[in-house]
Amino acid sequence: MSVTDDTARTPGTRKLAELSGPDVAARFTADTIVVQPTGAVEHHGPHLPLLTDFLLADHIGGAAVDRAAAEGLDVWQLPTLAFTKSDEHSWAPGTVWLDAATMFDTVVQVGRAVALTGAGTLVFANGHGGNVALLQVALREIRKRYELKTFLMPTLARLPGPDGEDADELGLGIHGGAAETSMILHLRPDLVDMSRAERWVPEHVAGFEKIAFNGGPVSFGWLSDDFGTPGVVGDASRASASYGAALWEHSLAEAVASLHEIARFDPRPPA
Amino acid sequence: MSVTDDTARTPGTRKLAELSGPDVAARFTADTIVVQPTGAVEHHGPHLPLLTDFLLADHIGGAAVDRAAAEGLDVWQLPTLAFTKSDEHSWAPGTVWLDAATMFDTVVQVGRAVALTGAGTLVFANGHGGNVALLQVALREIRKRYELKTFLMPTLARLPGPDGEDADELGLGIHGGAAETSMILHLRPDLVDMSRAERWVPEHVAGFEKIAFNGGPVSFGWLSDDFGTPGVVGDASRASASYGAALWEHSLAEAVASLHEIARFDPRPPA
Amino acid sequence: MSVTDDTARTPGTRKLAELSGPDVAARFTADTIVVQPTGAVEHHGPHLPLLTDFLLADHIGGAAVDRAAAEGLDVWQLPTLAFTKSDEHSWAPGTVWLDAATMFDTVVQVGRAVALTGAGTLVFANGHGGNVALLQVALREIRKRYELKTFLMPTLARLPGPDGEDADELGLGIHGGAAETSMILHLRPDLVDMSRAERWVPEHVAGFEKIAFNGGPVSFGWLSDDFGTPGVVGDASRASASYGAALWEHSLAEAVASLHEIARFDPRPPA
Amino acid sequence: MSVTDDTARTPGTRKLAELSGPDVAARFTADTIVVQPTGAVEHHGPHLPLLTDFLLADHIGGAAVDRAAAEGLDVWQLPTLAFTKSDEHSWAPGTVWLDAATMFDTVVQVGRAVALTGAGTLVFANGHGGNVALLQVALREIRKRYELKTFLMPTLARLPGPDGEDADELGLGIHGGAAETSMILHLRPDLVDMSRAERWVPEHVAGFEKIAFNGGPVSFGWLSDDFGTPGVVGDASRASASYGAALWEHSLAEAVASLHEIARFDPRPPA
Amino acid sequence: MSVTDDTARTPGTRKLAELSGPDVAARFTADTIVVQPTGAVEHHGPHLPLLTDFLLADHIGGAAVDRAAAEGLDVWQLPTLAFTKSDEHSWAPGTVWLDAATMFDTVVQVGRAVALTGAGTLVFANGHGGNVALLQVALREIRKRYELKTFLMPTLARLPGPDGEDADELGLGIHGGAAETSMILHLRPDLVDMSRAERWVPEHVAGFEKIAFNGGPVSFGWLSDDFGTPGVVGDASRASASYGAALWEHSLAEAVASLHEIARFDPRPPA
Amino acid sequence: MSVTDDTARTPGTRKLAELSGPDVAARFTADTIVVQPTGAVEHHGPHLPLLTDFLLADHIGGAAVDRAAAEGLDVWQLPTLAFTKSDEHSWAPGTVWLDAATMFDTVVQVGRAVALTGAGTLVFANGHGGNVALLQVALREIRKRYELKTFLMPTLARLPGPDGEDADELGLGIHGGAAETSMILHLRPDLVDMSRAERWVPEHVAGFEKIAFNGGPVSFGWLSDDFGTPGVVGDASRASASYGAALWEHSLAEAVASLHEIARFDPRPPA
Repeated sequence: MSVTDDTARTPGTRKLAELSGPDVAARFTADTIVVQPTGAVEHHGPHLPLLTDFLLADHIGGAAVDRAAAEGLDVWQLPTLAFTKSDEHSWAPGTVWLDAATMFDTVVQVGRAVALTGAGTLVFANGHGGNVALLQVALREIRKRYELKTFLMPTLARLPGPDGEDADELGLGIHGGAAETSMILHLRPDLVDMSRAERWVPEHVAGFEKIAFNGGPVSFGWLSDDFGTPGVVGDASRASASYGAALWEHSLAEAVASLHEIARFDPRPPA
Repeated sequence: MSVTDDTARTPGTRKLAELSGPDVAARFTADTIVVQPTGAVEHHGPHLPLLTDFLLADHIGGAAVDRAAAEGLDVWQLPTLAFTKSDEHSWAPGTVWLDAATMFDTVVQVGRAVALTGAGTLVFANGHGGNVALLQVALREIRKRYELKTFLMPTLARLPGPDGEDADELGLGIHGGAAETSMILHLRPDLVDMSRAERWVPEHVAGFEKIAFNGGPVSFGWLSDDFGTPGVVGDASRASASYGAALWEHSLAEAVASLHEIARFDPRPPA
Repeated sequence: MSVTDDTARTPGTRKLAELSGPDVAARFTADTIVVQPTGAVEHHGPHLPLLTDFLLADHIGGAAVDRAAAEGLDVWQLPTLAFTKSDEHSWAPGTVWLDAATMFDTVVQVGRAVALTGAGTLVFANGHGGNVALLQVALREIRKRYELKTFLMPTLARLPGPDGEDADELGLGIHGGAAETSMILHLRPDLVDMSRAERWVPEHVAGFEKIAFNGGPVSFGWLSDDFGTPGVVGDASRASASYGAALWEHSLAEAVASLHEIARFDPRPPA
Repeated sequence: MSVTDDTARTPGTRKLAELSGPDVAARFTADTIVVQPTGAVEHHGPHLPLLTDFLLADHIGGAAVDRAAAEGLDVWQLPTLAFTKSDEHSWAPGTVWLDAATMFDTVVQVGRAVALTGAGTLVFANGHGGNVALLQVALREIRKRYELKTFLMPTLARLPGPDGEDADELGLGIHGGAAETSMILHLRPDLVDMSRAERWVPEHVAGFEKIAFNGGPVSFGWLSDDFGTPGVVGDASRASASYGAALWEHSLAEAVASLHEIARFDPRPPA
Repeated sequence: MSVTDDTARTPGTRKLAELSGPDVAARFTADTIVVQPTGAVEHHGPHLPLLTDFLLADHIGGAAVDRAAAEGLDVWQLPTLAFTKSDEHSWAPGTVWLDAATMFDTVVQVGRAVALTGAGTLVFANGHGGNVALLQVALREIRKRYELKTFLMPTLARLPGPDGEDADELGLGIHGGAAETSMILHLRPDLVDMSRAERWVPEHVAGFEKIAFNGGPVSFGWLSDDFGTPGVVGDASRASASYGAALWEHSLAEAVASLHEIARFDPRPPA
Repeated sequence: MSVTDDTARTPGTRKLAELSGPDVAARFTADTIVVQPTGAVEHHGPHLPLLTDFLLADHIGGAAVDRAAAEGLDVWQLPTLAFTKSDEHSWAPGTVWLDAATMFDTVVQVGRAVALTGAGTLVFANGHGGNVALLQVALREIRKRYELKTFLMPTLARLPGPDGEDADELGLGIHGGAAETSMILHLRPDLVDMSRAERWVPEHVAGFEKIAFNGGPVSFGWLSDDFGTPGVVGDASRASASYGAALWEHSLAEAVASLHEIARFDPRPPA
């Protein structure tokens, strides 16, 4: 069965909301995967647009859905959530942040709606690190309430730094640094002001053995104005469009590969 | 002062989130108007996409902001809210609805963020009738909490029906009927399937003197599957792209005129 | 069947809560209409009692129920809600206001209780404009959760002003002006102090084409201390008991006519 | 100073909401006591109206305020809350119950409003036993948030039973039994149907040493349909108007005496 | 049947959480009683540990369960709640207090979990007076939602004062006074500093006829810093380990007797 | 200054709640670290007690605090939270789980209380994996609201499996497997029933490249009854007390090392 040729008027679209309600009801099955990109509108320093994380989630999420569909998956994209849990930047004008409870209720209600479509799987394609923990809580809540299979995948996959393995971001290039700046330079160079891009690496939080932003055994609570930088953590000055292009392709490939894994993953044992 | 030439990298953009945080802080004043379009992803019958109200809010909202800015207003657009209060269609697969409390909290938190930018005014440009009452409650809440001037304006302005004054929609063309179908035929004809468009006018609720969908003294609570139609209230069969084009221009002109009024309206007495 | 002669001890009462529980269970059917008046205790300027909107809702609501019952409807009245959504007057001592969420939960829970009685219809007879939008949200919520038919009707119906069509209230006589003052002069003259009644018409918000308190395409958020008046919007100085008597009879007649329409209105199609 | 002669239009009223907002602001001081009666609309068996507890709270509350004011206290009455925490009767049609959270928020918000008036003391005069624990929680919350002195007093004070000390209600005459039935026989005999009044004493819960409805060391959770009676706990058959008259006068005297104590009680040490 | 010999590895334990999940499922029946001790971590003056109420609830609760089980009841103990509703001491560093809503939700969710075990009865063994009213509200909520029989019993039972009937605590020895200080002197003398123990009896709130901390007809809202004492209400100076030992045995005996009553008490009528 | 010798009555205690309120106020400074252990009462299969995670958090948390204090840190322990976010086991009798919102509010309120003590740092020492994401959300919330430095550290640190590097748990030994079973065998062998311990490794979820329980780029939502095992994920049959002893010492050493790092870590730049 071809999933793309039975709706004459929207050939090829993978945007769920471009279908009609009855089309959704007719086409979606337990094998259908719905992707909800989650971005952010939040301060990313003087050189990047507020829209940075939205752009990553929206473009990678959308491109991954299209490519995975072309490769045979029954996968669909919901409109990207623009306003999410950006409270670590709530000191900075331009940030639009939801409280944790509101964000949680929103994504759980997305799950409720996806369950109604008949789809069996919901995937959050997330462009904003500040959403990760909350979305992980939501994965379980949605599975428990609505019995969907639920997943969370990132829309930015790391590569060695532009000048080699992490160069000197010291593992701290997490917000507005070389990676994100490069990707926006690649995607929307008109929105980047490299004349304002600097190295903002808070060296005093580097080099700890246990405590890390990601992946260490000890997590810590932080706000983006904690570090003595203008709300950025990373070295924006090393960004380049070419590195962005490489990150772009790598992130997309990772997202597509993840969707393929998701399509064949089931926590339940084989019958 | 020109509000559009001081940010070299984004000449002419009126999209708030394409600015950086510091740009927002530097440029916004008490005269700044921020427009939050509110759409919906909800069932609109077999002939229209779920995205219908989103498209109206997003396109009219955006075009009105651009035109009003070109005419001298300091006005900016936030990303359109896709998921809103669509509970009257929650029986229909494909609808993504937020609970009243979640929607309320979301828009109040948008108000909180707008107040932080330094802007003095927040306008909801709303494409979904089901949001109106809730947004009216929010207008007051946001004004009370954050002292913004707050407004709600529609993104679809009515004209006489395609075949004359209301033709025979009987004043009931409120959801998926001639007006909305025509506008999407004009904007995104690829998303409309006129072969499934019919007359779905619930004549049994027409002709009441007090009770009306809008504007009568008596309101009533309804769900879109109450009326014996496939979730549509209106005559989609009379839709046409040309009528849609007329509605489009009329709606845009009304929205722009509303923004001009908003810019000079202040509930507070002149000093 | 006479609905009024089967309970010997309470002949003629239409007050639901004067019945016993088993009487309610025995008498109520899907044709039964329950009316919930909603008043307010809120600042109405120096000349009117805080109880103004409560009096309108309670008296018009009660009289309309009695008259409609005498004309054959199976209609019953709940005790009037005194404390409602009066946050626009929360700056003024004497106002007792509920938060939006608390008011919403209260009226939804009234709906829950009415559904348990076996009645098929719930009507809010509302005396306070600040409740309208919130009650409209509740109409749908109650219908969705409890399957009642739900309606909202006002307890004050407008007439041409005391000196002709609106005289010079400029369409702004919405709170404590000629109409409300006249009605209280008619109903409880002991509670009105006309020596303090003045013309408080905020002319600076009149004459807008789009933006209006009621009925314009553009709504705005306001607090009653926005306008440079002592919390009143209207011309109290033109009030008279005779105009109040006319408003009284007109409002009552409109409410009764609305109940008759409600009794025969059903969103669902005829079987 | 006479507190009753400075508002010509409402001589003698002790109903707060019959004042205007500015009158409240001008007259209330830290010595002012505001009384909030709390009733209920809930099943009281086949012989009593749903309004029973409302009537007790409203009439005793109002009469106590009037008498205490005549005796020199600066005391005022708010409109009686009709819908309260009656979930133990939520199985019985006609009961209108609020969830615990909604009731709690409502009375805390009453406290917020009373604090704004300038009064120093809020007293709940409660006619419904099911509210006691929740109101006790609220007393502290209101004191903590708004710094009011807060009190809770009952509007029914027990006397020896109509036929002597408790006759054979076994200490279980707590809902719809001899006391309440007698008081309504005294106050509103038209609302009582003694032909349906029976002895409904759940003897199987009497005689425990620790566990009691009130006053024992061990509390228990109950619903009014637990006991094998028609939602009543007590002996309604022994009710009489004359016993009701005695209870009435005793309850009123106790309430007035309580208000006098309240007026001179301060948890804070003397200066 | 012996309830203690079927789980070889945990002979004799009455701690529910020392069982495995399947053991709970296999052993619990409608006759099973689960005891949830509720303590507090809150200021008890300079002489007592923050843990005072926790110790009372934990030790008396645990000892009562063990003794009642030895006497044949099928009774089990959950881990003691340490953080509860201590907002009256929230001014004092070291107090860990939950908001009323959070505490309520917590104990209702304990009820949900107990219902899942198959047990028929939940008993709160409470060491902190500030929890009583809230737990009483919860008793009904849990019974209504989960159909458990629910009870609340204290873990401190009063005796005549150390120097005779109340000596001169004036009925005010409610927090950190002779009784609690004596019990901790008996249980954990290492945690008491008698050199800082004084008489802190707020005599200005004694001697009222209606208003009392406990047991009077009129309740009042208080915070522990209202009274001009260092957050204590009572006479700590009279405490002694021997009086504590007597209280200890009396409280334990009362708790055990209460559990026996609870085991044979059923609000429902005998079949 | 010695932090342990200034309170004669509680020499050496590091349990915050064994101090009095005034002691806390006098001793705590911005350098003080408060540790909140978070356990769980939840199904761990037929061989382990419900208390498993509580024991890990309580014992490792407590021992780490004592050792770190002995090594000079000003660190204190709060009573361990027994009931936490165990909804993945809510199908299993004996589990006591809090909803996400209740757990979140609880730990944020713990943060509020810790901030009041004057301490500068709050560390969650967590024994239950199901709490991690929610606690990470709380770290930021508490930092934002109360300005504490906040951290999350685990109380079980992994070692190579009992028979070598992971033996054949396939990286899936996350709940009730070799590690947890061994630790309880070491700590409380009376609570383990090895006769019921089996290999419950859901091989069908092993070997994925992106999707993993922990540490993979893609997270998924799961319930412990998803996998076709009796609520366990891991190989309990390989557990041994000696491996438990090694894990115990390793976990404790890691926790102590983490506390030392935490004591010298500050997100804020050096002055």
